[in-house]
Amino acid sequence: VIVSLALGADAAAVRRELAARGLWIEAVERGAQAGDVFLVVSSYSAAVDSAEIAGIPGVRTVSVPVSAHPRIDEQGPVVDVGGVPVGANPLVFAGPCSVESEEQILRLALRLSALGVSFLRGGAFKPRTSPYSFQGHGEIALGWMRRAAHAARLKVVTEAMSEADVPLVAEYADLVQIGSRNMQNFALLKAVGRSTRPALLKRGMAATVEEWLLAAEYLLSHGSRGVVLCERGIRGISGGETRNLLDLGAVALLSHVHRLPVIVDPSHGVGRRDLIAPLSRAALAAGAAGVMIEVHEDPGNALSDGPQALSPEQLAALMPSLLPSSTPSAQVSR
Amino acid sequence: VIVSLALGADAAAVRRELAARGLWIEAVERGAQAGDVFLVVSSYSAAVDSAEIAGIPGVRTVSVPVSAHPRIDEQGPVVDVGGVPVGANPLVFAGPCSVESEEQILRLALRLSALGVSFLRGGAFKPRTSPYSFQGHGEIALGWMRRAAHAARLKVVTEAMSEADVPLVAEYADLVQIGSRNMQNFALLKAVGRSTRPALLKRGMAATVEEWLLAAEYLLSHGSRGVVLCERGIRGISGGETRNLLDLGAVALLSHVHRLPVIVDPSHGVGRRDLIAPLSRAALAAGAAGVMIEVHEDPGNALSDGPQALSPEQLAALMPSLLPSSTPSAQVSR
Amino acid sequence: VIVSLALGADAAAVRRELAARGLWIEAVERGAQAGDVFLVVSSYSAAVDSAEIAGIPGVRTVSVPVSAHPRIDEQGPVVDVGGVPVGANPLVFAGPCSVESEEQILRLALRLSALGVSFLRGGAFKPRTSPYSFQGHGEIALGWMRRAAHAARLKVVTEAMSEADVPLVAEYADLVQIGSRNMQNFALLKAVGRSTRPALLKRGMAATVEEWLLAAEYLLSHGSRGVVLCERGIRGISGGETRNLLDLGAVALLSHVHRLPVIVDPSHGVGRRDLIAPLSRAALAAGAAGVMIEVHEDPGNALSDGPQALSPEQLAALMPSLLPSSTPSAQVSR
Amino acid sequence: VIVSLALGADAAAVRRELAARGLWIEAVERGAQAGDVFLVVSSYSAAVDSAEIAGIPGVRTVSVPVSAHPRIDEQGPVVDVGGVPVGANPLVFAGPCSVESEEQILRLALRLSALGVSFLRGGAFKPRTSPYSFQGHGEIALGWMRRAAHAARLKVVTEAMSEADVPLVAEYADLVQIGSRNMQNFALLKAVGRSTRPALLKRGMAATVEEWLLAAEYLLSHGSRGVVLCERGIRGISGGETRNLLDLGAVALLSHVHRLPVIVDPSHGVGRRDLIAPLSRAALAAGAAGVMIEVHEDPGNALSDGPQALSPEQLAALMPSLLPSSTPSAQVSR
Repeated sequence: VIVSLALGADAAAVRRELAARGLWIEAVERGAQAGDVFLVVSSYSAAVDSAEIAGIPGVRTVSVPVSAHPRIDEQGPVVDVGGVPVGANPLVFAGPCSVESEEQILRLALRLSALGVSFLRGGAFKPRTSPYSFQGHGEIALGWMRRAAHAARLKVVTEAMSEADVPLVAEYADLVQIGSRNMQNFALLKAVGRSTRPALLKRGMAATVEEWLLAAEYLLSHGSRGVVLCERGIRGISGGETRNLLDLGAVALLSHVHRLPVIVDPSHGVGRRDLIAPLSRAALAAGAAGVMIEVHEDPGNALSDGPQALSPEQLAALMPSLLPSSTPSAQVSR
Repeated sequence: VIVSLALGADAAAVRRELAARGLWIEAVERGAQAGDVFLVVSSYSAAVDSAEIAGIPGVRTVSVPVSAHPRIDEQGPVVDVGGVPVGANPLVFAGPCSVESEEQILRLALRLSALGVSFLRGGAFKPRTSPYSFQGHGEIALGWMRRAAHAARLKVVTEAMSEADVPLVAEYADLVQIGSRNMQNFALLKAVGRSTRPALLKRGMAATVEEWLLAAEYLLSHGSRGVVLCERGIRGISGGETRNLLDLGAVALLSHVHRLPVIVDPSHGVGRRDLIAPLSRAALAAGAAGVMIEVHEDPGNALSDGPQALSPEQLAALMPSLLPSSTPSAQVSR
Repeated sequence: VIVSLALGADAAAVRRELAARGLWIEAVERGAQAGDVFLVVSSYSAAVDSAEIAGIPGVRTVSVPVSAHPRIDEQGPVVDVGGVPVGANPLVFAGPCSVESEEQILRLALRLSALGVSFLRGGAFKPRTSPYSFQGHGEIALGWMRRAAHAARLKVVTEAMSEADVPLVAEYADLVQIGSRNMQNFALLKAVGRSTRPALLKRGMAATVEEWLLAAEYLLSHGSRGVVLCERGIRGISGGETRNLLDLGAVALLSHVHRLPVIVDPSHGVGRRDLIAPLSRAALAAGAAGVMIEVHEDPGNALSDGPQALSPEQLAALMPSLLPSSTPSAQVSR
Repeated sequence: VIVSLALGADAAAVRRELAARGLWIEAVERGAQAGDVFLVVSSYSAAVDSAEIAGIPGVRTVSVPVSAHPRIDEQGPVVDVGGVPVGANPLVFAGPCSVESEEQILRLALRLSALGVSFLRGGAFKPRTSPYSFQGHGEIALGWMRRAAHAARLKVVTEAMSEADVPLVAEYADLVQIGSRNMQNFALLKAVGRSTRPALLKRGMAATVEEWLLAAEYLLSHGSRGVVLCERGIRGISGGETRNLLDLGAVALLSHVHRLPVIVDPSHGVGRRDLIAPLSRAALAAGAAGVMIEVHEDPGNALSDGPQALSPEQLAALMPSLLPSSTPSAQVSR
């Protein structure tokens, strides 16, 4: 936001009025003619009506940035995913890192559903840093997951890693996940957009909020019926005690100022089982639309990410503090 | 943690047992002799008893790091500050960025006390990025603050910026604050330590948790009677929407694993008034011992940081969600 | 590297011997039995023969990490790209951000060749942060570029963004570029690998050196005939004066310790025309195998990235300090 | 820089003219009245005369930021330190991490002088992350260093860590160093300023260039006769292979655009002996006024930082590529 001052205006008085509205002045600029003063008013501030700023004595003009992502700006805080309104009440997404067998996923899906979980997460195609790590069971796992979710009355969220696989993934998933490493894989964003499925867009490891919103804009402008954001920790200063920096400030910003649905993934955010409970609660307190948690019946035998997975029992103990009003028994009886 | 394997051990089986305990293997190393295998087990994991790991079949030896900060490791989760146990129940620290006049601080202290606030914060000596900004009213403001806190039955926390001022600040303050920019100002840490006062140690803007704990060790090893940590946001990837990255993962880690008291300062963490409420709640959910919030009766006229200050009315609206069981009226009647 | 000490060894003496060899001790660990001491020796150090460390008095065993990327470790410092040995003598890669017309690229290719440039760079498929920005002319631009390079006796490097386009790009390019945003787009890495073409792998904006090497391993393990790395600046603390942080420390490390060819792209690294000359010279001094510079005949009319492009005249002025021994006139006469 | 457009101006044509001058448009803003368009033109650009921009057809007004650090802006590229013009020709600063004994420093000073070194560096007061590490020999080491430098005709640079020690350090040193951890220790900056000695200001580990310049402004506004900047690596994404990120982009910017003298410290920048040679050359190529290198006669026995120190022989091998025209023998004969 740029505010220009009227000739002879009391700059200090204008500064006080802006401060009273929570607005910082980031820079003061002067034009060639005496008295030409421009204030660069920062984005560290609530959205304020520019007409209100224009009314401050001493203000000549107020300009506001032209948004580069009009579609996501207009989306709204709730995205319908197969009948479930993501962004309305807090939701829990849970499941294994990798879908390992039909039995595994069915048994787990039933337990998760009974606990009040809404979305079954699980990987069929796995992004792995090393080419020599397990890469997922692929298409067959999509079918296992779909059938398990159907039996347990859960929605399915799973990742598409390749443009070529998008139609397949979109057929099996209610919500198509785009992983952190692919947040700016524009070919994939376009392909997922064309599928028209709602998408879960994980934040890139070094992405600003603006870049994240522009990636969402790619999805919407190519056809996605809705975008749910997912914060999963970003790179930063760290001595290694937590794997990533979980940016709950961005979650609060997107939720309370941009009014968009954001899911938080504390499992990848910190990479340690012992901090998932407090950080899940913190995520919801910050304004998250839900949390996504890795759960495995036997973390020691998980094909990937076992050390950060909760057991179903650990999730059961956590659920009441995440969804205080949920009535798991009623859900079981559906 | 380094785990060496017995000759002929099944490395995959050991890996599964470690994963079951939430422990990641960061690196595998091999010695000169066939069969010499060492696993570097990462800190992304709960503190696990090394005897338990030693009992896993196939494990030959287990070693654990020698801590470089034994005193802070032993401090414990509660620090007594003038009779108030910081770390026991959630607390609110509040007050203006700068102490501006005796009347200001007295009137505000009484209002804050009535709302359930425990500590009066306020700057007499102000660290300012520019040499031309207001640098604080200095010693006289310490007296104003002390008398206001006495009248309102609050504790005082205020910053010491200069070694020379430490005796003075320690005389007026219950808790001596060390600012982010001084977290590794070792001369200041030693001087504050020698004062024996409990200290509030803000995290440096690029400090790892280990460096932060070593700074606390400086304080304790030079005489401080206790150290309370304060997370206030670190530098990181950001498009400027929030001023800093509030690292609630570190708060959860220090609170739940290290068992140390950590206060969170969302005012500096994100620098915007509109996110203070959700992030204060998130901080407590993550395990913070309290929150420190900038409050000013007339933010537009604050001498510093007005745009991020709450009004007393805004704080009043927030308090019930921070301290659900507090009974402000009872506290007023003290 | 983990060094275990013999019983009764003088730990301080071992530390001195390690320091003399440039090796830091990052952590000291102790086992359950008295005298069991393990030193974690850091990677901040030259590659030292483990047999030499094993010979230090007091050292019992030495182990070294098992590399997760054996193929790239063995590749060597020179990659043949269509007969040009990248990594032998310093090379200049130059060309426009986007290939805009057949005439543009032909005229420019001839000028660049006359200046001593070896590789023609240019985008046919452009990764753009916004879906509303120019996305490149696509396949037709590949043909323009190939013909221009043929006429000017240059090699072609251009980016593949989509798995589906890889066969096409591999047909036209001598070196297939993988952009920063796709460094961990594993589907694309596999597709480029299968094409068998040498690849230019740009570093991801938040990638560690280890992750970068693992991405190179994906390429090699799927068939690439060679990988040239490209440092183009990473995300970091910055007030915006330079767009990214150009990590010449990583370039020195990869070049002098890992002995791999690394090209540096200062145009994207700092995003400003006025720093390209000194940073190109610095890149070569740090050990880069070459520099990649955006050049446009009329930067004001470039379809993308004009502000950071050099004019051919500016490149001509820079060339002598990059390739002191080059004899452009001789090259023109080819 | 903010550019406002004339009513009916062709925004695309203005954009082209700006691009031709290396100027990026970071944001476009619109005012309340149709046709009110403001362009935020970024700092990724050479300093351009605002009158020239004002002359572009379609531009109505141009404003430029008011600098917050006028004194350092006017300082100029050369600082006289005891008769040596820092910033004129490349210089080498060398010496041990800690000054360990009178004999050590004298013998080393004589060798360094013979090699063409200009400044003797060495620590009397050492900033150490752990309170249990060697903290330096203090005042006595200042005397040893001064006498050694006198005998060897070198200038002295050494660090002041405590306000109380500033008068003492200023008495012994030609150039008073402020360490990274104290870059925003404003009490220390004021005290060093009052000493009037020229200062060597190391960049804080998370400091932006703007904050660094404001810290320099503290020094100058309190009396320093000149400020030499020192880049020593900042915190960032790193897998640990190099200790810090050496930001040579900032060095190029400060040297070529701000025209200020910047010394580069590759020893702390990467923390590894094997990369000091290429990065020293790269620093000078980027525009550094000199390099500061840790040198110890017997790195294995150094009291601190031995693993990153060069031996005098290693420095001797490096000098010709740093100061090609230096004639060490002539200097020895002084």
